[in-house]
Amino acid sequence: MIVDLKETAEFLAEHDNYYILTHQSPDGDTMGSGFGLCYVLRKAGKKANVLCSDDFPKRYGFMYDGYEPQKFPPETIVAVDVADRKLLGSRLNGYADYVDLCIDHHISNEHYAKRLLLYPDASAACEVLFQVISEMGIEFDKRIAECLYTGIATDTGCFKYANTTKLAHTIAAKLMDYDINIELINREMFDIKSRARLKVEQYINSAMEYYLDDKCAMAAVTLDTIKKTGLAQEEFEGIAGMSVQLEGVQVGVIIKEKDEGKFKVSMRSASDIDVSEICAKFGGGGHVKAAGCTLEGSLPDVKLRLLSGIAPAMGIDLWLA
Amino acid sequence: MIVDLKETAEFLAEHDNYYILTHQSPDGDTMGSGFGLCYVLRKAGKKANVLCSDDFPKRYGFMYDGYEPQKFPPETIVAVDVADRKLLGSRLNGYADYVDLCIDHHISNEHYAKRLLLYPDASAACEVLFQVISEMGIEFDKRIAECLYTGIATDTGCFKYANTTKLAHTIAAKLMDYDINIELINREMFDIKSRARLKVEQYINSAMEYYLDDKCAMAAVTLDTIKKTGLAQEEFEGIAGMSVQLEGVQVGVIIKEKDEGKFKVSMRSASDIDVSEICAKFGGGGHVKAAGCTLEGSLPDVKLRLLSGIAPAMGIDLWLA
Repeated sequence: MIVDLKETAEFLAEHDNYYILTHQSPDGDTMGSGFGLCYVLRKAGKKANVLCSDDFPKRYGFMYDGYEPQKFPPETIVAVDVADRKLLGSRLNGYADYVDLCIDHHISNEHYAKRLLLYPDASAACEVLFQVISEMGIEFDKRIAECLYTGIATDTGCFKYANTTKLAHTIAAKLMDYDINIELINREMFDIKSRARLKVEQYINSAMEYYLDDKCAMAAVTLDTIKKTGLAQEEFEGIAGMSVQLEGVQVGVIIKEKDEGKFKVSMRSASDIDVSEICAKFGGGGHVKAAGCTLEGSLPDVKLRLLSGIAPAMGIDLWLA
Repeated sequence: MIVDLKETAEFLAEHDNYYILTHQSPDGDTMGSGFGLCYVLRKAGKKANVLCSDDFPKRYGFMYDGYEPQKFPPETIVAVDVADRKLLGSRLNGYADYVDLCIDHHISNEHYAKRLLLYPDASAACEVLFQVISEMGIEFDKRIAECLYTGIATDTGCFKYANTTKLAHTIAAKLMDYDINIELINREMFDIKSRARLKVEQYINSAMEYYLDDKCAMAAVTLDTIKKTGLAQEEFEGIAGMSVQLEGVQVGVIIKEKDEGKFKVSMRSASDIDVSEICAKFGGGGHVKAAGCTLEGSLPDVKLRLLSGIAPAMGIDLWLA
């Protein structure tokens, strides 16, 4: 059942003993909306805990510093920023059929919850939650404001991406009334890197090759390279963006060997070229600006096949080159 | 003479034939406030040109695409985002004594103009100009909105730094009404890098050394390195931030040899440590989080002297280490 702001606020006011579910591999938005809602409910005199299939990442420590889970039998299950029951992960799987309310912004939401508040145009679940809290009439405080700000900032790349809404800025302005330390939060979210991540970035930069009049950048990492260099697998997240950082590059490709001779391809567009169309040719898909596919064979062959798919989109005829 | 918003709006309405001066090595804020004001004045039926001692950088091309200087004898001189007459640069030097109005946000403004509208708490000159335009009652349009947005975005690191004001967010929300392409602008401003810049970043990453329990990062570039590697001097701008990107680093240092045996030191703090105090010991200065000094001698000696100045600020006693 689709619910609106008013129904959501009423539901939250009328119930108690909340388990708030966040998605696995938690990001700033699920963490921010999870803890933001938890503190709001506790402020309203209710019992509430935040649950996740993974440990809460240290970088969001400022959200749960001093947080203690409360002891109570759960009565009301709310999922935040969880588009699909599968994203609940192994520890929270059992709750999938009992979610009373889901607050989300993903157009792809699977409508698994009994009640769904979905704003698909919102930049973040925290942008939706801000409106819920305002509707509930509960006063924000510094910690709640920091949780919501972080969710919006991380999902918009600090107000940089196309998904940034007018409301995202308006909310950020309002949250700044609560003395939040945006410098510290943003430094932690966007600037600080682990040594392992720096190593991966350096490798990708050094491995970048330029094709098709330098309009296509491509970097590959093989199982052999990972073994020899000790690059950390988990530090490759979001690395595809690096493939389109050089000026003039229209399509960027990161190729990562998953199993021997099997390559996961991430493609990014920095132009009008629709990379989901290119990836579809190889049995993959995705969005206009970010897509992917999987190819098998030798690495040189995989590169050649990708380039032969990319070249026509750039109006380049490889046979005449 | 200090003027307020109302006086500034009246002055601009009462005069004509404007030369708008921007500062040398133009950034997004001086470009944005320069062209933003120019288009506003032209919209009000006046003649106006934007002037700069340097060529307008290509990356801001969307601001001046289709812009044509008009022919007229200048009657009114306005400087935007120019804190000091010296920043007018060689081509505009001659106007320094004839600036009728300066619109700025630098607390360090030298009060060289006949009238000064100064909001030292504003994140950008464009934040001040937005208020001037609102006071003038002139309707924004897409191009003016893109100019002002860019100035605010670039001076705040896309709403990331501590100087980001509540008003900066509120203005961004309002400017989004004019269908500005924030994705394209922000990609151009923050994500795209030249090959020369990438090369400099790669060098800095590879040259980074870690001292004092890895709490101090330090990278040096010598004249010899620049000669051998062909690193572009102009691509070192803003590179000091890279020294504090690794988690755990409290103080970052970039050392650049300017003349044989003479080193320019840029120091950054990612902690409570006041680097201006450390740099003051070496005859330099700056801000709490960003400071600099110049040291002479051999590179190893320069590093050692810097470390002996940094260690005590971290509570580390080098003699006992």
